[in-house]
Amino acid sequence: MIKIGIVGYGNLGKGVELAIAKQPDMEVFGVFTKRNKENVQTQGSIVYHYDELLDYKEQIDVLVLCGSSERDLRLQSPELAKNFNLVDSFDMHAIILDHVNTVDKVALTNNTTAIVSAGWDPGIFSLQKTIMDAILTDGETLSFWGPGISQGHSDVAGRVEGVKMARNYSIPNEDNLKKFKKGKSIDAKNNHHKICYVVVEDDNERNRIEKEIKNIPHYFKGSSTTVKFISKEEMEKDHSNWPQGGRIIRTAKTSDDNNHIIEFTVNLDSNPEFTSSVMVAYARATYKMHQRKEYGAFTALDVRGQDLSNKSREQLIKEML
Amino acid sequence: MIKIGIVGYGNLGKGVELAIAKQPDMEVFGVFTKRNKENVQTQGSIVYHYDELLDYKEQIDVLVLCGSSERDLRLQSPELAKNFNLVDSFDMHAIILDHVNTVDKVALTNNTTAIVSAGWDPGIFSLQKTIMDAILTDGETLSFWGPGISQGHSDVAGRVEGVKMARNYSIPNEDNLKKFKKGKSIDAKNNHHKICYVVVEDDNERNRIEKEIKNIPHYFKGSSTTVKFISKEEMEKDHSNWPQGGRIIRTAKTSDDNNHIIEFTVNLDSNPEFTSSVMVAYARATYKMHQRKEYGAFTALDVRGQDLSNKSREQLIKEML
Repeated sequence: MIKIGIVGYGNLGKGVELAIAKQPDMEVFGVFTKRNKENVQTQGSIVYHYDELLDYKEQIDVLVLCGSSERDLRLQSPELAKNFNLVDSFDMHAIILDHVNTVDKVALTNNTTAIVSAGWDPGIFSLQKTIMDAILTDGETLSFWGPGISQGHSDVAGRVEGVKMARNYSIPNEDNLKKFKKGKSIDAKNNHHKICYVVVEDDNERNRIEKEIKNIPHYFKGSSTTVKFISKEEMEKDHSNWPQGGRIIRTAKTSDDNNHIIEFTVNLDSNPEFTSSVMVAYARATYKMHQRKEYGAFTALDVRGQDLSNKSREQLIKEML
Repeated sequence: MIKIGIVGYGNLGKGVELAIAKQPDMEVFGVFTKRNKENVQTQGSIVYHYDELLDYKEQIDVLVLCGSSERDLRLQSPELAKNFNLVDSFDMHAIILDHVNTVDKVALTNNTTAIVSAGWDPGIFSLQKTIMDAILTDGETLSFWGPGISQGHSDVAGRVEGVKMARNYSIPNEDNLKKFKKGKSIDAKNNHHKICYVVVEDDNERNRIEKEIKNIPHYFKGSSTTVKFISKEEMEKDHSNWPQGGRIIRTAKTSDDNNHIIEFTVNLDSNPEFTSSVMVAYARATYKMHQRKEYGAFTALDVRGQDLSNKSREQLIKEML
């Protein structure tokens, strides 16, 4: 059994615990938290304090880091790579290369293995884009997001005066999507539409609130948004999950007359539970690569498909090929 | 430049020549044919006879084998792996494991690298199924084929008396597809519908011909088929390409309430041109793996995403992650 240490127990950490329960060859060694241990209620995993991590170095095969990229992972991943194999889902796209290089140096020095930025984007989506681009060189790739919750937009809408709760959904523009597939030019600014569900304190304030939300700079202003007012009960009943979706489409030519479309689509009831399932599969790959003495920091682009699976090579060839 | 030898010059070989022209780091060394060299008209590549292959051993980096699985590849791949790195798209699913093992033995003995069964199915689709299965363990995967030409069905319909030309399309049943995505049970026998376009010698014979086609055992009998009679001109204008499509869908749970759907879809104007584009990307991976002294026979499941690409690791991290 591959023994996993879960570092952090928010939505992602909880998802990792659920995902490991569904994997036949993995088990949770424990959850490591910076909070007061007594306040962390898991689904059965033992809770340790973050400061105890080093005591269990020999008993943990791979750490799955479930903190925030900005607040935690930037420093945590290179620090923990001194003593542990690890997976993170570092998603600050502009500085991923720095992150890889920083962790790589530590991991190579200490003979550990790390797979970083291994969620769905960056992660699985990055792999799909790479494959599409390598196979069909003469084309264009586009990503569409949603339907799903965008947390940043929900947060800023929730801070408008008189708003009790807000959840903003990003919805892909299916017309643009169809046009792109047909090779027509599209205005990428209109690739997404927003629907913002809002619970207000005073129904008489609806007009002002709608106007204010639609004018929040950087987030809503200039984009196509519908504001829908609903009750607290509706909000709790219909909008308490974290659904998300995404689509990568490549259209390309192999000769003058022949066009091809490749698409990879996910529709997720729970963004954090899916991300954590991806991380757990990459934790298995981390373990296998470390067994083979492949040290350093890697990304989804460096990992063989079969290293994600618990099935033997023979079984995979029989079932998948 | 990576120098490619194309073995066989049918639809697939022609596609390889086109695909290499779009790759900045690869070039065709030559086409090797078992036919009379004078009868092979390429898009510019030099034509050699198959028997001359060994003379150019030192000048060719990777062979891309474009023959038939049954008639050629079963013996050709192990034979050529003695002296060359190679890619094939061996697609006799039931015996792929044997093929891998046979080629592996030769390649390991001779320090060559082979990637076999590297088309779209088996190949890219196999990789997608493996990734989906590894990430979301608690679910079900289904493949839908088409819309596209099925060659076997076209051939048997074309042999019915009074038929001049026939092209049969397989069309996925969108209702079943939607039901499967919603987690409902479906009758997989009805996952596909057939549309058979036929040119006949005598229009008075339509009824008999339609009945005969629909009753061809193994191919049409018992399945849902529409026969459409068209003119020779329509056939040549609208049905002279080899379009094909396919979709892999996995539906899975990460917890009691949360379902996820992952889909990978291709819609291809030309099945052989797409397959050959896949093979050319795997030829690049073959070259890179051989440079790293990774000898033996591999499949799409053993290959890192970045080995398919001509871009540097740094560039890929910046662009794709």
